Amino acid sequence: MKMLINSPQTVVADALRGLAAAHPDLDVDPEARVVVRRDARQGGRVGLVSGGGSGHEPLHAGFVGYGMLSAACPGEVFTSPVPDQMLRAAKAVDSGQGVLFVVKNYTGDVLNFDMAAELAEEDGIRVERVLVNDDVAVTDSLYTAGRRGTGATLFVEKIAGAAAEEGAPLEQVAAVARRVNEASGSFGVALSACTTPAKGSPTFDLPDGELELGIGIHGEPGRERRAMMTAAEIAEVAVGAVLDDMADAAPAAAADAPVLALVNGMGATPLLELYGFHAEVVRVLAARGVPVARTLVGNYVTSLDMAGCSVTLCRADEEMLRLWDAPVQTAALRWGR
Amino acid sequence: MKMLINSPQTVVADALRGLAAAHPDLDVDPEARVVVRRDARQGGRVGLVSGGGSGHEPLHAGFVGYGMLSAACPGEVFTSPVPDQMLRAAKAVDSGQGVLFVVKNYTGDVLNFDMAAELAEEDGIRVERVLVNDDVAVTDSLYTAGRRGTGATLFVEKIAGAAAEEGAPLEQVAAVARRVNEASGSFGVALSACTTPAKGSPTFDLPDGELELGIGIHGEPGRERRAMMTAAEIAEVAVGAVLDDMADAAPAAAADAPVLALVNGMGATPLLELYGFHAEVVRVLAARGVPVARTLVGNYVTSLDMAGCSVTLCRADEEMLRLWDAPVQTAALRWGR
Repeated sequence: MKMLINSPQTVVADALRGLAAAHPDLDVDPEARVVVRRDARQGGRVGLVSGGGSGHEPLHAGFVGYGMLSAACPGEVFTSPVPDQMLRAAKAVDSGQGVLFVVKNYTGDVLNFDMAAELAEEDGIRVERVLVNDDVAVTDSLYTAGRRGTGATLFVEKIAGAAAEEGAPLEQVAAVARRVNEASGSFGVALSACTTPAKGSPTFDLPDGELELGIGIHGEPGRERRAMMTAAEIAEVAVGAVLDDMADAAPAAAADAPVLALVNGMGATPLLELYGFHAEVVRVLAARGVPVARTLVGNYVTSLDMAGCSVTLCRADEEMLRLWDAPVQTAALRWGR
Repeated sequence: MKMLINSPQTVVADALRGLAAAHPDLDVDPEARVVVRRDARQGGRVGLVSGGGSGHEPLHAGFVGYGMLSAACPGEVFTSPVPDQMLRAAKAVDSGQGVLFVVKNYTGDVLNFDMAAELAEEDGIRVERVLVNDDVAVTDSLYTAGRRGTGATLFVEKIAGAAAEEGAPLEQVAAVARRVNEASGSFGVALSACTTPAKGSPTFDLPDGELELGIGIHGEPGRERRAMMTAAEIAEVAVGAVLDDMADAAPAAAADAPVLALVNGMGATPLLELYGFHAEVVRVLAARGVPVARTLVGNYVTSLDMAGCSVTLCRADEEMLRLWDAPVQTAALRWGR
């Protein structure tokens, strides 16, 4: 497998050097592996820190900036960052208002963020944590106890980031982050496996003519393998799985709330195909009587060079939509400013 | 080859339906295949129309909006749009100030835009044309007489779009567009071929362990095939080829102008790799004493699911940089507003 890299050992550090060169408004430390918004401590806001294994770009470093994350901690590819990175990030962004850790639900990330929270609290930094676990496809997996955290991470980071930017206190930022996670569900589909730089060969074998339904973002196996389907059929399965899960889980009051929809590419699927798939997602939502409040189409929560897509829906209340619409200015997500 | 589509015949129309659903500020006609900025005729501005074969998304439809294109005409995959699309677009955007056609230098596009210009002029619309031909890799190719138009199209559309947004007259918008093209050069590298929906198999055969230097954006063969190289080596070749060509061609006055740099993914190369490659591009530019004024990193001028990258440099004067920095609000490029 060919890659545009210098060596598997330097992939993450090289990318961070490139990020620093491209975005002077970010304070990037390629050695310590922490990406901090330069003005993170101005304005006395709550700090928002996230992170996780690399390979899902632009998540998370591409979401550091005005109205979203204060800092991100990238680990090695598909490997949790270590507590020291999160502690550095917390110290770099805390202005006395406390820090919210946004943690995708993978065993390593949860352990390491918990340890970092303890260390930060010993240093006098108040820390709250929100766990993102939106993937409706599988309950337990190779990497998780419980559901995996995937596309809803973008919703949580955007909406909680906007609340922090407005000056909301820590408890309130944490509360809206948890509400967004609880109101969200995701389902992913792979047309090809991905290849990590270290391994150099695909993480699973997916024959021509088949696709994998319910995959995660680490090339871990999914819920079911089937013969190749059309975009319309894939949209039926993915949207159906998310809506069915929501109907079981969500409070009745939210059942007619409009959705915020993320139609996400896994990395190697052309935007031409992704927009066509988006048309099918919107069609299925209309057929199921679900109003669509906002949509975002693109490669945001990826899995290296995997071909495929995921759908994330969030039953959004008015506050969430207002915070979603609020200005954001990061490497990967920008509007309204 | 698996694709996230309904059928090869409906790929472009399906994508346009999805684009319409995602971007209500665009007036999308999936049948006539014209994408128009809804407020195109407000404000009495010069209209900017571009287009070309589909498969290079977000180019061009993703660049329609405030401060950039007024309309785009997508053809079939890798196939020129027809004159009727361009004529419709010109009529939809002309407010009496005239229209600039931005045309990538491919035989079909040039012929069809020329025919559309004649038809538009018969209808009383003033038309100027700028030809984009920035690819330094090959002089003639399967699809072109002369150089191919690739990454510089983004620079031309952004900078000329900003001039039009400011209210510059047609001749001035056309003049700055031509200056940007003349000041620009590109070089592309493929790690894999791409697969068109109609053909369903890769457009050329690229064995494992080899890469193709000097490729275009249609899967056409490049300048040279070599054993796989590191990101650092690829940056040396790509940046070197562009700078050497500029040294031969550019007026001496521009030789110390800072560059605007686009580090572009061909579609399937992860952003993690692209940022690492960007670090090497910046390193090579520094070593050659070229100041870097602005950089943009991402998948902007793609070739379906091709893995690889291209580098586009523009020796920018102060007016170009001012217009580059001006606000833009499109599906794929947004800042400052």
